[in-house]
Amino acid sequence: MKKKSNDVTGTGEFDLIDRLKFILPEIKNKDVLVGIGDDTAVIKINTKEAWLVTCDIQIENRHFRLKHTSLYDLGKRAVSVNLSDIAAMGGDPAFALVSLGLPPNLTVADYDALFKGMRDQMKVFDAHIIGGNLSGSQKHLIIDITVIGKARIDHIVQRKGAAVGDGIYVTGTLGASGAGLAILEKYGRNYPEQFQPQVDVHLSPQPRVAIGKALAREKIASAMIDLSDGVAGDLYHICQMNDVGALVYLDALPFTEEVREAAKLCKLDMDQLLLHSGEDYELLFTAPDSINSDRIQEIGKGFGIPIHRIGEIVLRSFGYKIKEQTGEISPLKPQGWDHFKTV
Amino acid sequence: MKKKSNDVTGTGEFDLIDRLKFILPEIKNKDVLVGIGDDTAVIKINTKEAWLVTCDIQIENRHFRLKHTSLYDLGKRAVSVNLSDIAAMGGDPAFALVSLGLPPNLTVADYDALFKGMRDQMKVFDAHIIGGNLSGSQKHLIIDITVIGKARIDHIVQRKGAAVGDGIYVTGTLGASGAGLAILEKYGRNYPEQFQPQVDVHLSPQPRVAIGKALAREKIASAMIDLSDGVAGDLYHICQMNDVGALVYLDALPFTEEVREAAKLCKLDMDQLLLHSGEDYELLFTAPDSINSDRIQEIGKGFGIPIHRIGEIVLRSFGYKIKEQTGEISPLKPQGWDHFKTV
Repeated sequence: MKKKSNDVTGTGEFDLIDRLKFILPEIKNKDVLVGIGDDTAVIKINTKEAWLVTCDIQIENRHFRLKHTSLYDLGKRAVSVNLSDIAAMGGDPAFALVSLGLPPNLTVADYDALFKGMRDQMKVFDAHIIGGNLSGSQKHLIIDITVIGKARIDHIVQRKGAAVGDGIYVTGTLGASGAGLAILEKYGRNYPEQFQPQVDVHLSPQPRVAIGKALAREKIASAMIDLSDGVAGDLYHICQMNDVGALVYLDALPFTEEVREAAKLCKLDMDQLLLHSGEDYELLFTAPDSINSDRIQEIGKGFGIPIHRIGEIVLRSFGYKIKEQTGEISPLKPQGWDHFKTV
Repeated sequence: MKKKSNDVTGTGEFDLIDRLKFILPEIKNKDVLVGIGDDTAVIKINTKEAWLVTCDIQIENRHFRLKHTSLYDLGKRAVSVNLSDIAAMGGDPAFALVSLGLPPNLTVADYDALFKGMRDQMKVFDAHIIGGNLSGSQKHLIIDITVIGKARIDHIVQRKGAAVGDGIYVTGTLGASGAGLAILEKYGRNYPEQFQPQVDVHLSPQPRVAIGKALAREKIASAMIDLSDGVAGDLYHICQMNDVGALVYLDALPFTEEVREAAKLCKLDMDQLLLHSGEDYELLFTAPDSINSDRIQEIGKGFGIPIHRIGEIVLRSFGYKIKEQTGEISPLKPQGWDHFKTV
């Protein structure tokens, strides 16, 4: 047991990040508007604009399995998880740097396909790969991408900003990526066609850049984060950052019929899937109740993406809770997807 | 044999980067002043200034061995190899993002020490870690750092710019890192004290930021690169970029007595060590012969670092050659340190 608590695996991602508060000095450079602890760092360009900078490391058999995905889709996905962080700040993707660790069994055709996927996903947002670094890797493919986006400073939405009384909203539906992964694990690549949308979300999620920008520009979102760790894990980051609690309504969590069916087929617990499975890369945001709920729905409709109110920000003293279908209120575990576990 | 030429290991780092010319679209964003193919990408901030952005992935047992280094030194080193790229453009380091893949056996104390090393090396240049990403890794420690620097646009020195007739110069001395590694491999951590400087260069090289800035500001360097792959490999990048050849004088390559002694003890070929061993992180630059050689030496002296003229840029038709001590001229192999091999 002693060993476990002293090694990084026993400590966990969030506690490790928390330690940095005590190790790293306070940033006194006034160009750094946001440092560690948000979806992206924010660096001032001039009085009106800022760069958003974020990176994300993806390791084979931890974040993806090559038996499930084409290299092309993997390239798109590796870019998308970073674009999703830019989206969560309300920014516009602009540039990427790509670091790769290439295992010996990777073919040149694989390498080309990976870059083509990255290129095509960047192209959707008129963004470009401008640099990077290649290395060999012993056994597993490693993809680390840094994305730089741009935003108007007065439009940037941070994790900070949620207040008691704000509604909690999510774009799209939940659990699709987790369901897609379960379907792939069960059937391999010959899965029933009806689950194509879930598999697609898992293998190549669509970052919510346009809707993120609209929510930011119209000053609707008071705080925002992208769903990489799942609702329970990611909403907890917002609560901690703002010293508030939250009440999530279980029966308000949006999902598709296929997700329910996949859960049944794969013997997944639906509550677990909707609350604790990650990598949907939807946006979770809070908005003051003064903002007309119809206006929020309307914005979603404009992009063909539903937006659902799934709960409310409450006093910290109330805690972090879930309201069951029965009306019963119980604690919500702040655990989400843990990237220290294997997929 | 067929397999070998189709996999990434058989293709090699430089050819893989070359393929991107055909895969990635031309960058039409006019804010991107330099894209793939230099030490850093360059993004315009305003009419006078630009960001320099670079990343470098370091993988355990490929770029470093934990039996040789403390985690603190490793943190410093991982930052330094990126700062060295900023130095090679004549820029000022400002910010870093840190992506880590942490293996299960790493302790929290290791993690802290790694970040302390990174922090302290950034602090030397008044630069800050502003973001990052953590993941578990199966077996090996992975460190990928993105560094952002700043430079005046009219001061930036690129790989492009060398012309026939330019002298070729290096800062400091050569072969120290390779000698330090050989000493560590031979003796472990109980190496003879006289080789401390070489071991230090290997474990924690000092990026030549101040001298790089001076060479850029005084418009002395026409082209510049940092020595990560070794003189023969890195100078070749400059030749290719400028469609020129080079003649290197073997007897002008600077080294210390300890490096010669380490080579003898460890049975290393001196020419190989000086030309083809990498990771010295000195600067290699070209300068027009119109620039007074004394002025170049003087700049070096100002920083306590010798600068040596080691050759000249010649017509491409002359080729890529080395002048031996005997006066004989023979082809110089453009091979350097290959990060697709293990250390």
